[in-house]
Amino acid sequence: MTDPLPQPPRLSDLITVPTDRRAFLAKASAFGIALPALAAGCSRTEPDARSAADKAASATGASAPHASPTHLPSNPDSRLDSSLNHVAPLSSAAPGTVPGAQATAFHRYDPALPPLSSSSTLKLHFHAREASVRISDDTVVAAWTFEGDLPGPIVHCRVGDTVEFTLTNESAVPHSMDFHAAQIDPKQAFRSVVKGASVSYTFKPKYAGAFMYHCGTAPVLMHIGSGMYGAIIVSPREPLPAAREFVLVQSEFYLSDASQGVRAFDYPKMLSTLPDFVTFNGRPNQYIKDPIRVKVGERVRFWLVNAGPTHPCNFHVVGEQFDTVYLGAPPGSAIRGVQTWDVAPGGGMCFEVLCDVPGEFPFVNHGFGHGQKGSIGILVVES
Amino acid sequence: MTDPLPQPPRLSDLITVPTDRRAFLAKASAFGIALPALAAGCSRTEPDARSAADKAASATGASAPHASPTHLPSNPDSRLDSSLNHVAPLSSAAPGTVPGAQATAFHRYDPALPPLSSSSTLKLHFHAREASVRISDDTVVAAWTFEGDLPGPIVHCRVGDTVEFTLTNESAVPHSMDFHAAQIDPKQAFRSVVKGASVSYTFKPKYAGAFMYHCGTAPVLMHIGSGMYGAIIVSPREPLPAAREFVLVQSEFYLSDASQGVRAFDYPKMLSTLPDFVTFNGRPNQYIKDPIRVKVGERVRFWLVNAGPTHPCNFHVVGEQFDTVYLGAPPGSAIRGVQTWDVAPGGGMCFEVLCDVPGEFPFVNHGFGHGQKGSIGILVVES
Amino acid sequence: MTDPLPQPPRLSDLITVPTDRRAFLAKASAFGIALPALAAGCSRTEPDARSAADKAASATGASAPHASPTHLPSNPDSRLDSSLNHVAPLSSAAPGTVPGAQATAFHRYDPALPPLSSSSTLKLHFHAREASVRISDDTVVAAWTFEGDLPGPIVHCRVGDTVEFTLTNESAVPHSMDFHAAQIDPKQAFRSVVKGASVSYTFKPKYAGAFMYHCGTAPVLMHIGSGMYGAIIVSPREPLPAAREFVLVQSEFYLSDASQGVRAFDYPKMLSTLPDFVTFNGRPNQYIKDPIRVKVGERVRFWLVNAGPTHPCNFHVVGEQFDTVYLGAPPGSAIRGVQTWDVAPGGGMCFEVLCDVPGEFPFVNHGFGHGQKGSIGILVVES
Repeated sequence: MTDPLPQPPRLSDLITVPTDRRAFLAKASAFGIALPALAAGCSRTEPDARSAADKAASATGASAPHASPTHLPSNPDSRLDSSLNHVAPLSSAAPGTVPGAQATAFHRYDPALPPLSSSSTLKLHFHAREASVRISDDTVVAAWTFEGDLPGPIVHCRVGDTVEFTLTNESAVPHSMDFHAAQIDPKQAFRSVVKGASVSYTFKPKYAGAFMYHCGTAPVLMHIGSGMYGAIIVSPREPLPAAREFVLVQSEFYLSDASQGVRAFDYPKMLSTLPDFVTFNGRPNQYIKDPIRVKVGERVRFWLVNAGPTHPCNFHVVGEQFDTVYLGAPPGSAIRGVQTWDVAPGGGMCFEVLCDVPGEFPFVNHGFGHGQKGSIGILVVES
Repeated sequence: MTDPLPQPPRLSDLITVPTDRRAFLAKASAFGIALPALAAGCSRTEPDARSAADKAASATGASAPHASPTHLPSNPDSRLDSSLNHVAPLSSAAPGTVPGAQATAFHRYDPALPPLSSSSTLKLHFHAREASVRISDDTVVAAWTFEGDLPGPIVHCRVGDTVEFTLTNESAVPHSMDFHAAQIDPKQAFRSVVKGASVSYTFKPKYAGAFMYHCGTAPVLMHIGSGMYGAIIVSPREPLPAAREFVLVQSEFYLSDASQGVRAFDYPKMLSTLPDFVTFNGRPNQYIKDPIRVKVGERVRFWLVNAGPTHPCNFHVVGEQFDTVYLGAPPGSAIRGVQTWDVAPGGGMCFEVLCDVPGEFPFVNHGFGHGQKGSIGILVVES
Repeated sequence: MTDPLPQPPRLSDLITVPTDRRAFLAKASAFGIALPALAAGCSRTEPDARSAADKAASATGASAPHASPTHLPSNPDSRLDSSLNHVAPLSSAAPGTVPGAQATAFHRYDPALPPLSSSSTLKLHFHAREASVRISDDTVVAAWTFEGDLPGPIVHCRVGDTVEFTLTNESAVPHSMDFHAAQIDPKQAFRSVVKGASVSYTFKPKYAGAFMYHCGTAPVLMHIGSGMYGAIIVSPREPLPAAREFVLVQSEFYLSDASQGVRAFDYPKMLSTLPDFVTFNGRPNQYIKDPIRVKVGERVRFWLVNAGPTHPCNFHVVGEQFDTVYLGAPPGSAIRGVQTWDVAPGGGMCFEVLCDVPGEFPFVNHGFGHGQKGSIGILVVES
């Protein structure tokens, strides 16, 4: 093991990594790069009785982990006995850190799958509208949205249910609605409507699955890229095994510099395919601050939609494996014992984890060149 | 719902989107970005009895949608009772819009799967040759090709058939032929040959599927990226369900600026992985102008090859779902009820849609950062 | 077939390709681009009784193809009756071509799957340490490693075995270990440790498969991207069909310019997602120089881990097809007759080829925009 030649330099010599972790991270930040704390639990170096998630939440003033998020019916003029998850409380003023955008409060996007309706008919009335959305403490985006938030509301129904859908456009730009769960002539149903106009259509989902919906108006890259997407979850008629069910929509953000405290979406940057953020449910790292919580012994089912517009979501749960990934419409074509599986942009898939070990399990997009920009959250399995 | 604070600006304020759609698109074009009309049917805002596809076709002088494209046997010295689709009518002069490249006419690449031969032996003689190919009204590319077009001719055979193949190189650069459907020593069979030389080999396809063929000469990125690819479709011995069958080859174009009206392929740009165009069958948006047409009630089978060289094809049909995607050699490992599935570069897959609803259904690469650059077409289901 | 109009220029006119192949390649090199000889067997243009692989090996001074690579037990303080493959012979000085980095010799990373232990308990003690690694004749990288090499040692066990693992950090930067094969609370087990500290945990792999391991310390992109990854292969309790088994770990390299003859990993470049090299087992094209050799009639099983950090591995064997790809934990969800399948970053998969034809079969990442940067090797099937 002797070595008569001079040793080559080490990586730490070349990049002058300080021995102190805090200083190292400060240096890394100086690269001009956000360094999200992947897996808060993974990177701590000191014993600490308080969970990293709790610490992060309190440090940022986020709501207490167990506080119920606001669930507002978003379509007061439709029968909202089911199927719609929360909507952005745009009017609940809260102090922000961005001058000129203080009106826009941060809220956690609730990932819980809403319960099924007691009715087999779902009446939905969505509005295409422009809205500013605070996606983190220091970033407010000016978005095109469905119902004032991104992603739009989560819709939940069953195979064979009837979905009666209306889109009203309140925005200056023409918009439309393309449900991937619908089998229908898109020339008619998914047509664009101008400001003040509406389009209505009815469909019966044929297959179970996690389906994307989005504005399909050209250029579709810009409309998806500016916030007009969401998830419709179609459960099979024969229920799947009992589980805690969550919805994750991955999407990329391509943003211009802030103007009046707000960042617009940047179409040329979308074509560069190098996003500023990649998120689950529209906010970078939101479920690090305020994790998803389940009990040990529960089966967790993630309905994952990848809104893209461009990159795959290479889904992985740190410290766990997927008991089941359904490649076909659930329960079809189940594969077992999978560490990571990619969901194509414009696609959706259903993943299950058996949570028989307590702990804090980060769920990530393991394609870290993009995934590290915010598509990281924590699943807390409580004993 | 009151909001005492000043409202933040909207996205349309920040990017100054005109309210008029035409002006908006003009502005978007001014970004220096092509804005292909995704799903002509989806984006129209006026009622119009004439189909968008018809309009687009007539506006560009394309042939009438129902006119038969030219099907020429490309290898007069081989037994061409089957298996070879059209070839570029290079000599049929037509006025072009690019000065100096007028000799090169646009032709639609016929996506129909050619019928099987009555013989179980297929004799193919391909020529590697340089050719200019008009891929759109305003773009002619100087390509390396098989048989003068890109993609090269579609080959169709069955599992266990005998393919007797010869490549003759008519180009200054060494070329070769790699059939993914062949199980054979590539060192011998796929070797490069210089100008004037030929290489011959025989193979019997072992598995059914949509297989890529391509020039494998180093650097292979350059040879694939410059046009030397195509599809060989291997049908199983036991026929699949009756269907209208089409072949789509996705490929990326990385081009230099025009010289003498012609754009060369650009190798350093290939390594940037940001293509200028992404196409089905070598022409951006050709099946928007001149759609694929079937009848209601028909099963449509897409044999999709992704020639790459780099990006996946996230295949999706707007307004439909895939009844079946065959993950293994058809009919193996069929999954059902799929919205979007990605085909790897260098891979191929078989997709089926049950067209039980009439309408105009765009088929797309749903990874829109790349897909919007031309891998969009329309499937018209006529009642 | 007459053409009255002037012919457009050909691609070779536009890029001035010399007719001589050697001159052409020299010109291509002048683009500033590495041109790895894809499929040495594919690109030769002269008959030659000596194999291209042999030629390449002797030309570079690599060891004779059949010479046994050095297998050193890497953890003298653990029970090394199994499961650990070779380690870099850092101290075996050999002249290099890079001034100041001569102490670092090139060695081929042995891809053979190590045999299973006779014991059902595996005791592993890994050390996180900085090391320089020669990945090619002219490139030495300053890496963060497990056990002084990249990838780290191959671990091999069975479903239900017990893995007793300890990581000791000898590096100035905090590090950790995340085994994708472990079902365990990552907050505890995968926590970071500072220099001189250790972390230990025990796990029993639940599923068979090719699993990634890696440092999970934030920013994880930097730790994976700097060399801290490897493969743990978990065989099923019921043996799979007899086969020659190999392990391939694909990874990307993002490097700064050389300093003192050594190139550091470059974090901002990692975020650009345009790698300098993409490799199997950490050295570009190493198995072109010194192929993997099997006998005709053997089944070959590749356990492929894609360490990423970002791009998929679109795995393909030139001249062959995959008899089997296991989408689920082997032997689960086997698909048959596949030309190319993509493995997600952070994922792993098991591929089988029936080598019933002798020859030289390149195995590649067919996404050539990235794959051509070094993830190419040759499987020699000897008669």
